[in-house]
Amino acid sequence: MEDFKRLSLNQMTTEQWSLREAIEGCARAEVPWIAPWRHKVEELGLSTSKRLIKDAGLKVSSLCRGGMFPAVTASERQKRIDDNKRAVEEAAELGTDVLVMVCGSLPDRDIQSARQMVADGIAQLVPFAKSYGVKLGIEPLHPMYAADRSVVVTLDLANTLAEAYQPNQVGIVVDVFHVWWDPDLYNQIHRATGRILGFHVCDWIIPVPDMLKGRGMMGDGVIEISRIRQAVEKTGYNGPIEVEIFNEQIWNQPGDETVCQMKERYLTHV
Amino acid sequence: MEDFKRLSLNQMTTEQWSLREAIEGCARAEVPWIAPWRHKVEELGLSTSKRLIKDAGLKVSSLCRGGMFPAVTASERQKRIDDNKRAVEEAAELGTDVLVMVCGSLPDRDIQSARQMVADGIAQLVPFAKSYGVKLGIEPLHPMYAADRSVVVTLDLANTLAEAYQPNQVGIVVDVFHVWWDPDLYNQIHRATGRILGFHVCDWIIPVPDMLKGRGMMGDGVIEISRIRQAVEKTGYNGPIEVEIFNEQIWNQPGDETVCQMKERYLTHV
Repeated sequence: MEDFKRLSLNQMTTEQWSLREAIEGCARAEVPWIAPWRHKVEELGLSTSKRLIKDAGLKVSSLCRGGMFPAVTASERQKRIDDNKRAVEEAAELGTDVLVMVCGSLPDRDIQSARQMVADGIAQLVPFAKSYGVKLGIEPLHPMYAADRSVVVTLDLANTLAEAYQPNQVGIVVDVFHVWWDPDLYNQIHRATGRILGFHVCDWIIPVPDMLKGRGMMGDGVIEISRIRQAVEKTGYNGPIEVEIFNEQIWNQPGDETVCQMKERYLTHV
Repeated sequence: MEDFKRLSLNQMTTEQWSLREAIEGCARAEVPWIAPWRHKVEELGLSTSKRLIKDAGLKVSSLCRGGMFPAVTASERQKRIDDNKRAVEEAAELGTDVLVMVCGSLPDRDIQSARQMVADGIAQLVPFAKSYGVKLGIEPLHPMYAADRSVVVTLDLANTLAEAYQPNQVGIVVDVFHVWWDPDLYNQIHRATGRILGFHVCDWIIPVPDMLKGRGMMGDGVIEISRIRQAVEKTGYNGPIEVEIFNEQIWNQPGDETVCQMKERYLTHV
């Protein structure tokens, strides 16, 4: 158990499972943490989700996800803020203080304005999140998602956004899949000292089988996962380590098998 | 003709054509420049390629491509250097002074060492290229190609590599597909003043249909192409503008149709 005390199953790794199944699967495999996704929480219901997680003795490492701020119209942007407020409430209810932020995509061709909409959205959300004791964890995504998921595509951008606030209000989430290519990776991790709210692992496999569902199990690809983990820990981060793998092939195998393999690879490759 | 005097067909846009067909296609459409690829030149033969290009009244904007420096063993790295020397000779023979460099992928998990191998390879190649009057144009690729095509994934890295040399020896090539997401894009273009050796256009379409063959025709995606062109021209670059589109669907349509559409979109979206 000691070996796995920081291990968390991000629910997307076993996308084929409902939240109830994922909770049961973690309990069976003695994985102590879970990171649920909002659409799965909604399926099961918030209070049932909370109760089942608690009854299974699990802790919630983060809630995925808030963000998605940029939109063409002010009213649509306000709707996004309102939805983010609900996400904050859900995070608090589920007992985690980290809401992972996937900041949102281009509403048109103007990427600079979209980045400003992200900054504005965060500014609006912070006081609300603070009142719930929830921190916003900005997760920069890989630049290949700049058009359709997040215009925040580097640790530098995420750090700059976060530094406008206290570290106990806004921080960053480091996912090796999104940042391993960055020539400035280790400087930016160091820069985030005191502000890292989550660490996500998977691998980059060659060839990438799919733009969205093409991540690999740790050890199957080219990312220096241990080296990045060491850099993250050097900043003082000693919280949960989420395994988050979007991969259609992995989703087609039994969830228990995935969780078992994830535990093995966590020991050998994280 | 005046409108198209800087337009170049990068041969990958009509991948279905042989070099002979591409030359004839450019001549028919009065596209004044062409950027051949080495494997297509090899099919036709170097001297025939040179003659047909000359006879058609075309100019060669660049030769694609040199690079691919990192490899596990020293002997393999030397083979790559030797191949790059042949690429330099071919560029000179075809009458272009720009060899586009796709710097090469990870031989193992150590991306920092791979980047050093790129720097070492360029250092070895520069004196040879200089003796032929050929400039090395470092083209940073999108970070999604870091594992299997180029560890040089930002304009910052490309500028840093190039700045170790005189601008008439090593410069950079700006391809909008590879760099549009970069928060530091306009600073880095400005930094490359006097060193830009090529400008490539296409578009980023949503969703990207394929990691490699998923680029779009200008105007079909989200890239601010005109804005980037203006920034590039502000540095003084007034050379050819290559249209380089890797797209299976476009390759399946008649080449003449692609060239016709490329000319229209060049006027309206570049």
